[in-house]
Amino acid sequence: MNMLALRCGDDILVIDAGVLFPGSELLGVDVVVPDITYLLDNREHVRGLIVTHCHEDHMGAVPYVLSQLNVPIYTAGFTQAMIGRRLQEYDLEEPPTIHEVKPKDRVTLGCFTVEFIHVTHSTLDTLALAIETPLGVVVHTSDFKIDPTPVDSKLFDLHTFAEYGKRGVLLLMSDSTNVDREGFTQSERAVRPALEDIFTRSKAGLFFTCFASASHRVQQIIDMSMQHGRRVALIGRSLITASELAHEMGFLNVPDGTLIRPQDLDRMRSSDCTVIISGSQGEPLSSLSQAAVGKQRFATIEPGDTVVLSARLIPGNEKRVYRMIDHLYRRGATVLYGNRTPPLHVSGHGSRGELQLMLNLLRPRYLVPLHGEYRQLHQHAALAEPMRAAGVKESFILQSGDVLEFGEHGVRRLDPVPVGRVCIDAGTGDEIVEEMVIRDRRHISEHGVIVPIIALNSHTGELESGPEIITRGFVVGEDGAELIEGARAVIIKTLEGSSGEEKTDGSVMEEKIRNDLRRYLTRVTSRQSRPLILPVILET
Amino acid sequence: MNMLALRCGDDILVIDAGVLFPGSELLGVDVVVPDITYLLDNREHVRGLIVTHCHEDHMGAVPYVLSQLNVPIYTAGFTQAMIGRRLQEYDLEEPPTIHEVKPKDRVTLGCFTVEFIHVTHSTLDTLALAIETPLGVVVHTSDFKIDPTPVDSKLFDLHTFAEYGKRGVLLLMSDSTNVDREGFTQSERAVRPALEDIFTRSKAGLFFTCFASASHRVQQIIDMSMQHGRRVALIGRSLITASELAHEMGFLNVPDGTLIRPQDLDRMRSSDCTVIISGSQGEPLSSLSQAAVGKQRFATIEPGDTVVLSARLIPGNEKRVYRMIDHLYRRGATVLYGNRTPPLHVSGHGSRGELQLMLNLLRPRYLVPLHGEYRQLHQHAALAEPMRAAGVKESFILQSGDVLEFGEHGVRRLDPVPVGRVCIDAGTGDEIVEEMVIRDRRHISEHGVIVPIIALNSHTGELESGPEIITRGFVVGEDGAELIEGARAVIIKTLEGSSGEEKTDGSVMEEKIRNDLRRYLTRVTSRQSRPLILPVILET
Repeated sequence: MNMLALRCGDDILVIDAGVLFPGSELLGVDVVVPDITYLLDNREHVRGLIVTHCHEDHMGAVPYVLSQLNVPIYTAGFTQAMIGRRLQEYDLEEPPTIHEVKPKDRVTLGCFTVEFIHVTHSTLDTLALAIETPLGVVVHTSDFKIDPTPVDSKLFDLHTFAEYGKRGVLLLMSDSTNVDREGFTQSERAVRPALEDIFTRSKAGLFFTCFASASHRVQQIIDMSMQHGRRVALIGRSLITASELAHEMGFLNVPDGTLIRPQDLDRMRSSDCTVIISGSQGEPLSSLSQAAVGKQRFATIEPGDTVVLSARLIPGNEKRVYRMIDHLYRRGATVLYGNRTPPLHVSGHGSRGELQLMLNLLRPRYLVPLHGEYRQLHQHAALAEPMRAAGVKESFILQSGDVLEFGEHGVRRLDPVPVGRVCIDAGTGDEIVEEMVIRDRRHISEHGVIVPIIALNSHTGELESGPEIITRGFVVGEDGAELIEGARAVIIKTLEGSSGEEKTDGSVMEEKIRNDLRRYLTRVTSRQSRPLILPVILET
Repeated sequence: MNMLALRCGDDILVIDAGVLFPGSELLGVDVVVPDITYLLDNREHVRGLIVTHCHEDHMGAVPYVLSQLNVPIYTAGFTQAMIGRRLQEYDLEEPPTIHEVKPKDRVTLGCFTVEFIHVTHSTLDTLALAIETPLGVVVHTSDFKIDPTPVDSKLFDLHTFAEYGKRGVLLLMSDSTNVDREGFTQSERAVRPALEDIFTRSKAGLFFTCFASASHRVQQIIDMSMQHGRRVALIGRSLITASELAHEMGFLNVPDGTLIRPQDLDRMRSSDCTVIISGSQGEPLSSLSQAAVGKQRFATIEPGDTVVLSARLIPGNEKRVYRMIDHLYRRGATVLYGNRTPPLHVSGHGSRGELQLMLNLLRPRYLVPLHGEYRQLHQHAALAEPMRAAGVKESFILQSGDVLEFGEHGVRRLDPVPVGRVCIDAGTGDEIVEEMVIRDRRHISEHGVIVPIIALNSHTGELESGPEIITRGFVVGEDGAELIEGARAVIIKTLEGSSGEEKTDGSVMEEKIRNDLRRYLTRVTSRQSRPLILPVILET
């Protein structure tokens, strides 16, 4: 859920607007976006939003931000196209302004002048930023690795970084994702030997899954398919969208006659086709998960076929991915996955070697590690320690909402600004789930709910009907009927012990019933039974 | 959740009774045990339950089984002690019978004669089984690796396996956990270099976490602490229980004066102590998780301290473990975790090399891979393929409930027997959560609940009060009040459209209201809003 704001006087520049895919603790929430209260409170000062690349954790919240704040966007061509495609699903009040920028372009936004720098990463058209400010240059690396042999032969722009380093950099903000890996991340081309091996051995169907926007990977699978006389089908909406755009824009090299439609697969021999299919994280409704249980319309996996998971397994997704792999084995497929030599997947993020090289190239006065959990930010800061004598004066670990102020006389932390998460329930992007709703769901999901209901005469306060008690998701066990009977008795006793005045005040009675029932449940159940208690008092 | 039954005529022998720790999809369920309907239906034939070792996935369901079926248990001394300690928490109707057995002991149970064989594993006193049956010998490896240099110098009993192999084995049932790892698993002693390095460098507090029953690991940490002049505190109930028992029984070598009580830690300099603390899986209430947020009574983690995760990260626990690590970093600790060289942890399960060696030693006619998910069982079966000419005729992958029959003339699969899972809600082991309760919890947790309530006059069927509508965990959005108002109108319309006869039949009215409300919600909410609808009709 990356988002960062630079402010200088009355000019605010925002970098990235990403989403977070929620864990199971956020029940029923589809996606989480950043709380942009600070930007809305300062909306007249926001000069622009730069999106560094098209990954969801950098780009996914753009529709949400635009729905609140019509800010001009600056981004590379491929990211622009991906945002454009995404915005088709939304009905924004004002048309968005998206400026395409290219590496080496310079854009002035208020007192900031931004130069865009080409870096290598696992997706297309990723841009780092060198931002000139009145106090000095701020460099934002975006996500990067230094790939010496990128698939598209567009080299990482070491020279521009070197020049900025020579001229002097105030602050480096740099990717920390792989700080716990020694050495240098392998080139994207490092997956080629494994692909060659797989294509050479396979005599039946071949299925690859990777991230939808991993166009370099898709290119390599297509290249290898051509060499081995296989035609290629793409299955999965996001994969098709990204690949179509990449092809239209000349990033993806697909000779005519290479691609076939998914619906043509059943007319072909499986040994003549390669299928690239989305769902590397075992998402339950993804095409590969569906194919694994024989429910994908076009992709049929048969005994002897090979399925290759050419993607990182994102922490938290292990169980569902392994469940999918088990299903694939049950269908008789051979599944290739995990860390193997030669690799089936290489990361798009630089390891310690690259992070150190970036520090060496830029020699910044200050470092703010970006893009990682606390342990990774901490390790990145520690990596810069030995460079103190070389001029890297200090590192700052910033957590969400933290504010760091650079002035003529140095750096200091200011009070945090309000930030947080906004939980979105549906793909439409306009249904916000309150944290309280999630808390309730969580409580009910763990302990169940018990709803005691009584009807009181509004004049006399006498019990007209009930108590009725309904429960859901609440373990009553073998003594269930007895327990419910006891709860009824408790409520009747609560009523008897209440004055006429109390009985005509619904909220007082609700609270009394809730307390008495809670005490009763704690007493009679062996464990701490804590269902959500929702008393209802009807007045007749 | 390991459990296996061998049956020969009217004699049933059960091997292991383990639990499963449920994923987040089983909301509020603490532990899952096997459904033992088959054993209960055949209770007069069950001759004994053998528990191979003390890990929860082999031993944890013993109290549950004993509460249903008073079967004699046969197990090694340490496992017996662990079971005994566990049973103190339960109030069984009949006293259990637990026979201690030693390696090389032979026990006859009906037509089975079982010889117990010592194997090396990550916990103490693990036993494999060679079971003589009228049709031939069945070997059950239990969990094992072949550790050539075990910490306690009790070698893996290769010779007994070799002898059985020489005499001929009908069926091998063998551990499949690490079938996806090449070569041989490293010896438990392989963690020593990393420990030496950690103890040599550390000038402040040292915290280790490992599985409670990993007594070999505890031994090595204690040994190293003695060498470096540190005294040792154990924190965490299960860790203390297992270590106390291991010490009492002579498995754990702890010189007098080595151990200190947790409450004495604050009087000592942190550089004079080692703390072994439970919670390697980031369990929210574990001692280490509590210490990570400064809430453990005795373990205080301070800047400069080192925390070592000396355990496997079980798939599914990644997120909470990483969250704990982040907290530890925030407290200023250095955290050592993950796959490192030299290793901080080695597995207790054999890799492909050991599995092949086992197949070579025993040369069984049939193989049933045990202990793994489907992909692992499949890979284990594939590993035996090249041994066909050497006499391993066939492998069978069995899933829960599958039945394999060996007869004079070969092997065949029979119809499965009823099996499944029983969900237990509390540590007391006697509260069973119905699958329906879990389904309800799941539904509510994802979509919320809506409870429409009306009071009807039981004679006239007229509306006396309501409709009241309460919702929880249900997203009503900005138009919430309007939506609820609309729902009230729907219910009133439902009532108006119902005959007097219908109105005096609560269940009919409930169903009508549920259907009409469901249709209304689908219509007015942009997404498929599917809260659990629980109509309540009070009769006054």
